Amino acid sequence: MTGTATHPPGGLFISLEGPEGAGKSTQLARLAAQLEAHGQTHTVTREPGGTPLGLRVREVLLDPALTIDPLPEFLLYSASRAQLVRNVIRPALERGEVVLCDRYADSSLAYQGGGRGLNAGLLGQITQEATGGLTPHLTVLLDLDPAVGLERAARRGQPDRLEQADLDFHRRVRQAFLTLAAADPDRFLILDATQDQDTLADLIWQAAQARLP
Amino acid sequence: MTGTATHPPGGLFISLEGPEGAGKSTQLARLAAQLEAHGQTHTVTREPGGTPLGLRVREVLLDPALTIDPLPEFLLYSASRAQLVRNVIRPALERGEVVLCDRYADSSLAYQGGGRGLNAGLLGQITQEATGGLTPHLTVLLDLDPAVGLERAARRGQPDRLEQADLDFHRRVRQAFLTLAAADPDRFLILDATQDQDTLADLIWQAAQARLP
Repeated sequence: MTGTATHPPGGLFISLEGPEGAGKSTQLARLAAQLEAHGQTHTVTREPGGTPLGLRVREVLLDPALTIDPLPEFLLYSASRAQLVRNVIRPALERGEVVLCDRYADSSLAYQGGGRGLNAGLLGQITQEATGGLTPHLTVLLDLDPAVGLERAARRGQPDRLEQADLDFHRRVRQAFLTLAAADPDRFLILDATQDQDTLADLIWQAAQARLP
Repeated sequence: MTGTATHPPGGLFISLEGPEGAGKSTQLARLAAQLEAHGQTHTVTREPGGTPLGLRVREVLLDPALTIDPLPEFLLYSASRAQLVRNVIRPALERGEVVLCDRYADSSLAYQGGGRGLNAGLLGQITQEATGGLTPHLTVLLDLDPAVGLERAARRGQPDRLEQADLDFHRRVRQAFLTLAAADPDRFLILDATQDQDTLADLIWQAAQARLP
């Protein structure tokens, strides 16, 4: 399970990252519609979730009544991710599909690393084991000022546990995402999420299309 | 969070290990009753479980309808353990109490390592992070032939996911427990679980009493 990053032959793995309220779900649906329109077989999934195990872990992680410290939080995300890679992402890539994932390992590095202060080396190592080194071909980072993102999320209803965390936390998360993106410019597409949705959808589709097999 | 094994001052940490059907719950209750009779403040807990998070993780782990691969299974146990150490075990030891735990890290090393074949070094490293290096002062291993243990467990009702696994798996688990015990003879008390419950309770109480502060 250890080793360097490996991709199954064929397939294209795209993740969408960014804070709550940045429009990940909207853009994921639009990208899926584009793929559909171009007859490109694809699988849409998300973290945490995406498998029966992941859905159960998601309920636990987002339950505001539970006390979950940073390390157990990261281990729960990693458990969901490990099952998702094994049962969904890798098999779909092996079938030659495009996989769209709403959040992936970068979210753990940003939220539990940058945000909650867990050691990046430890997170990287456990992530390597959980994913078997599987890294997206393209990661779209919808970058947004945390103050704007939280306001957008609050408008959609009751804030969940992550959304209740303070603004400083979200500023550290944003910085961590930008640092990850700067370290891997070939993989990351950083987009200003305050642009209108049509412009964002066009930019994302261009980047995806350029990487299609 | 990294570092070598550390114990808070005062307190005594005792774990009970062994297969399903070995009598861990019975012996844990009897040891708790002895401590009670001797006016020794104690906390009884178990893995997975012991915290609101742990109980939720326990439900997930024991749900026979879910597909859970070995690594995500280990990560879920580790998440439960990390929260238990932080919220229950370490605070109780810091209050000078005796902590009795029905299963602890040795179970992961035996079941996910020996039984499911995950790399022992990886498990040890993540366990070190999850527990902050906290190791029991005394670990009672109720050793039992897996064939006998499974028969006993089956008599108690519907087998859960672990109990359905095959006999070879349980033989590897037993061997892993015995290997862990052989490597740490000062910590482990290995008992033949086919002895009568009074004899076992006496032997466990002697070992516990010898370690009381």
